[in-house]
Amino acid sequence: MHNFNVPIGVSNRHLHLSEEDLRTLFGPNAKLTYKKPLSQEGQYVCEETVTLEGSIGSISLRVLGPVRAQTQIEITLTDAYKLGITPPLRDSGDLAGSMGCVLAGPEGTATLKEGVIVVHRHIHVRTEDAAQKGVKDRDRVDVRVNSERGGIFTDVLVRVDPTFNLEFHIDTDESNAFALKNGDIAEVIKRDNQSAE
Amino acid sequence: MHNFNVPIGVSNRHLHLSEEDLRTLFGPNAKLTYKKPLSQEGQYVCEETVTLEGSIGSISLRVLGPVRAQTQIEITLTDAYKLGITPPLRDSGDLAGSMGCVLAGPEGTATLKEGVIVVHRHIHVRTEDAAQKGVKDRDRVDVRVNSERGGIFTDVLVRVDPTFNLEFHIDTDESNAFALKNGDIAEVIKRDNQSAE
Repeated sequence: MHNFNVPIGVSNRHLHLSEEDLRTLFGPNAKLTYKKPLSQEGQYVCEETVTLEGSIGSISLRVLGPVRAQTQIEITLTDAYKLGITPPLRDSGDLAGSMGCVLAGPEGTATLKEGVIVVHRHIHVRTEDAAQKGVKDRDRVDVRVNSERGGIFTDVLVRVDPTFNLEFHIDTDESNAFALKNGDIAEVIKRDNQSAE
Repeated sequence: MHNFNVPIGVSNRHLHLSEEDLRTLFGPNAKLTYKKPLSQEGQYVCEETVTLEGSIGSISLRVLGPVRAQTQIEITLTDAYKLGITPPLRDSGDLAGSMGCVLAGPEGTATLKEGVIVVHRHIHVRTEDAAQKGVKDRDRVDVRVNSERGGIFTDVLVRVDPTFNLEFHIDTDESNAFALKNGDIAEVIKRDNQSAE
């Protein structure tokens, strides 16, 4: 099995809104306003922002589109300390029992029972490329970065989907800890408990 | 050569002041006010704080004592983005040609030609323990952390001194990227280019 390279995508804090929460925060006829595309097909940055109210501070979050079945708020641990809250580390989409919050928009306030998480780092792989790269959906891999502050991320989740573009998604705590920028290259070096070489 | 464990010490952003800058910022008769001890002998947190003025924001920094020959300001890359500045990644004490800044205190403002850095992670080892641990001053080692977001920090600087207490110093970007807290245990697994086992 050979190693393979992955471009890095750094996620700033953001949220995905449900239709219901979108209407609560932005008004009964609200629709998301496209601003610019993201690297993954069909995903985009919106003009809308929302305020997350913590216990000792608040923070502005960019809305990403399109709408989803459930609102998901993705912040860093640095943000969490600033807000005075303790969201769990979760894989994207795994929201059951995650942290609740109060969101404030221009037209209203939404109180959520769950939805705030710190997202576990993960790699998007397109289905047609997965076999050649020797990975399958929900594998865990180790990823090396050779930056000025280099190192290895262990236990990185692999997600495989026909629409995905190859990308290693980390948050800004992870990019700053290793002095990484969008588009820098990381290397998958190990799959689960097997040696990569 | 065997591996060894090291307790983690997380450094929040802070600064060390020279006598001259202390007087400029806090008045001609100013002395540092002891607040509480740090883990390293003779080092302490002060009551004093200083504001670092960036190009797009500013940030409050805690002063650590005692005074030093030259003022050194240690911030994270997350702080640097917030401030709109680009300090270099440096070993502590290596300030020549680092980033200048404006500091504001209650009694005055100091304009520094250099002193702002992001500190490269490092391990403090007491001289009497170094040989037994198989390290010497200025070695570079790899350090593993087995947290919920685990991984390996490569190229960690070793500093050896008779007064040091064993500790792996990282900043808050690094602790948050790996979900680490003060007192968590890391493991030195490799010295320079040699295998650790």
